Amino acid sequence: MQAEIISVGTELLLGHTVNTDAAFLGRELAALGIDLHNVTVVGDNPGRLAEAFSEAMGRSGLVLVTGGLGPTLDDLTKKTLADVLGVSLYEDPVCLEQLKEYFGTRPMSANQITQAMMPEGATPLRNRIGTAPGLAVEASSGTLFMLFPGPPREMEPMFLNEAVPLLSERLNATIVSFMVRTFGLGEGMLAMKLGELCEAANPTAATYIGAHNEVFVRVTAKAATREEAVALAMPTVEEVKARLGDVVYGVDVKNLEEVVVAELAKRHEEVATAESCTGGLLAKRITDVAGASGVFRTGLVTYANETKTRLLGVPEKMLAEHGAVSPEVARSMAEGVRRESGADYGIGITGVAGPGGGTEAKPVGLVWLALSTKDGCFVHALRPQGRYPGREAVRQRSASKALDMLRRYLTGKPVIAE
Amino acid sequence: MQAEIISVGTELLLGHTVNTDAAFLGRELAALGIDLHNVTVVGDNPGRLAEAFSEAMGRSGLVLVTGGLGPTLDDLTKKTLADVLGVSLYEDPVCLEQLKEYFGTRPMSANQITQAMMPEGATPLRNRIGTAPGLAVEASSGTLFMLFPGPPREMEPMFLNEAVPLLSERLNATIVSFMVRTFGLGEGMLAMKLGELCEAANPTAATYIGAHNEVFVRVTAKAATREEAVALAMPTVEEVKARLGDVVYGVDVKNLEEVVVAELAKRHEEVATAESCTGGLLAKRITDVAGASGVFRTGLVTYANETKTRLLGVPEKMLAEHGAVSPEVARSMAEGVRRESGADYGIGITGVAGPGGGTEAKPVGLVWLALSTKDGCFVHALRPQGRYPGREAVRQRSASKALDMLRRYLTGKPVIAE
Repeated sequence: MQAEIISVGTELLLGHTVNTDAAFLGRELAALGIDLHNVTVVGDNPGRLAEAFSEAMGRSGLVLVTGGLGPTLDDLTKKTLADVLGVSLYEDPVCLEQLKEYFGTRPMSANQITQAMMPEGATPLRNRIGTAPGLAVEASSGTLFMLFPGPPREMEPMFLNEAVPLLSERLNATIVSFMVRTFGLGEGMLAMKLGELCEAANPTAATYIGAHNEVFVRVTAKAATREEAVALAMPTVEEVKARLGDVVYGVDVKNLEEVVVAELAKRHEEVATAESCTGGLLAKRITDVAGASGVFRTGLVTYANETKTRLLGVPEKMLAEHGAVSPEVARSMAEGVRRESGADYGIGITGVAGPGGGTEAKPVGLVWLALSTKDGCFVHALRPQGRYPGREAVRQRSASKALDMLRRYLTGKPVIAE
Repeated sequence: MQAEIISVGTELLLGHTVNTDAAFLGRELAALGIDLHNVTVVGDNPGRLAEAFSEAMGRSGLVLVTGGLGPTLDDLTKKTLADVLGVSLYEDPVCLEQLKEYFGTRPMSANQITQAMMPEGATPLRNRIGTAPGLAVEASSGTLFMLFPGPPREMEPMFLNEAVPLLSERLNATIVSFMVRTFGLGEGMLAMKLGELCEAANPTAATYIGAHNEVFVRVTAKAATREEAVALAMPTVEEVKARLGDVVYGVDVKNLEEVVVAELAKRHEEVATAESCTGGLLAKRITDVAGASGVFRTGLVTYANETKTRLLGVPEKMLAEHGAVSPEVARSMAEGVRRESGADYGIGITGVAGPGGGTEAKPVGLVWLALSTKDGCFVHALRPQGRYPGREAVRQRSASKALDMLRRYLTGKPVIAE
């Protein structure tokens, strides 16, 4: 099945909005084993939209359309598609009922009601977040059109919950995916270790770069039923985990911070943070996780030497002798915050995020990290690799490394690898 | 002039990369007054790419192409375009020289050298960040093709520095833009205040939503020379500033934190932060600004009541009586961190970021902010508006509000508006 995406919206052409919908759908189609060959962005212009629909019908078996389903005068997608397909629009009673439910006692304008209109022959796709339902409809040529709202937080759940089952039926197969998440090795090294696993047809294994330079491996399997697909995927998932070893921090988890908070919560333990160059980013990422308050009470941003001494007890003499960016000071910060806060673990981070502030001995990108535990303190340096990736990247990578050190400690892996 | 964008790269179709290039170019074309009618994404496939080029030639006066200029076997854009235009590729001596400069003493492979190949008749566009030059070439039909590297940090400066002058020449005009940045009013309200300014043809004024729900107004003017364009734009810039008043925090500045750090640095003053629900985000944003160490030494993340008492001196009795999320505690946090750190200003933030933790009296999205100065303490509440925007949005908006309160104080505006 050949697919294409049409993203509708003048705000996309004006650059007001970045087309994350197309990237999301691209990933999902790849996981479904459906070949996406084209993405087109058109404005809220019925003439151009009709052209795009006609062209798509001529060359693709599946056309995913985002945008233009709302209640305003610019929302033309359904009417234009109905015209191109040569069918009329009717008011779907189930959609109308769901719209009324959404609005409750509030009055609904005529514009709002247009969202319940469906082309003849269409299957509505439920919108559990916003007002506009999507729809699936097959052209007489056999092309399947699926229409979704533009906003990602409405489109994404609609695609996953409503559209994927329909597509699985059509493909006569069920697809399951598992995301093996890793931190610590680059994509090239991962690909080498996975070798022929990435060439296989079913299950497939593909590497992706995630946020903060993490690499994740998506294992996808296709079978007649969900149970068979899972059974088919699992040996590959296990093989990927075995080959990658300790860099794997979870399967189908959101990120390192989620894993660390969960592990700490399991043990009823707490972590405290003392940050210099990361400036509060580590505390921010920990507190991104709902429930972090059960495992985190104290974060310090000791951005000057004086603050390190005043709040953490880092000796002035140590700062004078070794400098703030040193293993000694990182250790002192970690132990200091653990002691002061009463937490079970203390993390200290001190480095040169750049772009300024580097010297030959302590170049931009050098960051010392320390993890203080009851078993002692682990100290590690991140060193610059290749081209300077920028201040944000250095800070994010440092926060991730600190989380990964704690993750390894909590899960019984070597805290400092190789 | 009608324009379209062709984004080349299978990684875009697979959803590995989001197409920020198209959004950037869309904004820039809008500022140049050039009508963008289509964006197409195609994979690293010579057949489809040639089709896309031919179609574009038939309907657009300007075609911007991103991707596929690098040294790998997938990089086909130049060869494919040359074939479609019916010209050959030659090795440009200036490009070759610049490539040699880039590599210095390191050996250059044959693949790398292909980046110096240019279609006959092309004008190279200098790449000051990476290896692959871009190019501009006119088809016999009159369509102007401009090719850029895919990576945004190479494409964006190349477009602004190399392509815009060429386009200005072709448009027989120079375009200048000014970004008036605001915080505190929604886009709808801003549009109302700007009224007819947004309907004008030259200069134009357009509103955009930026990061963290800020709204900025882009004023663009077109004239024969740069001086004339600036002279034409300035009265509109001043009128926009006059109509929007205190919500304007700068023109052509990067963000609130940059303005605040600059203002503090001018006065040789410092700020310290005490955060609860924002979890370190405010300190992180302040330290995003290079040079923040001159104005920021201490940030505290007092995520538990006990920590607020221990580190800031917030009385236990106050916490018991009013709760952590209260104006009393926000004030106590701000005054406490100012006192403890010796800074000139203290900021306290305490609220309910959600999604859990809300009550009827203190719903999700309620955040109390306090700014402690030598003239007294300013206290303000952010309250939920409409649908819950999510944990990240509540936290970002709170950090922005805190920065804005300090910005207003430092620039002599009312800290708490209306």
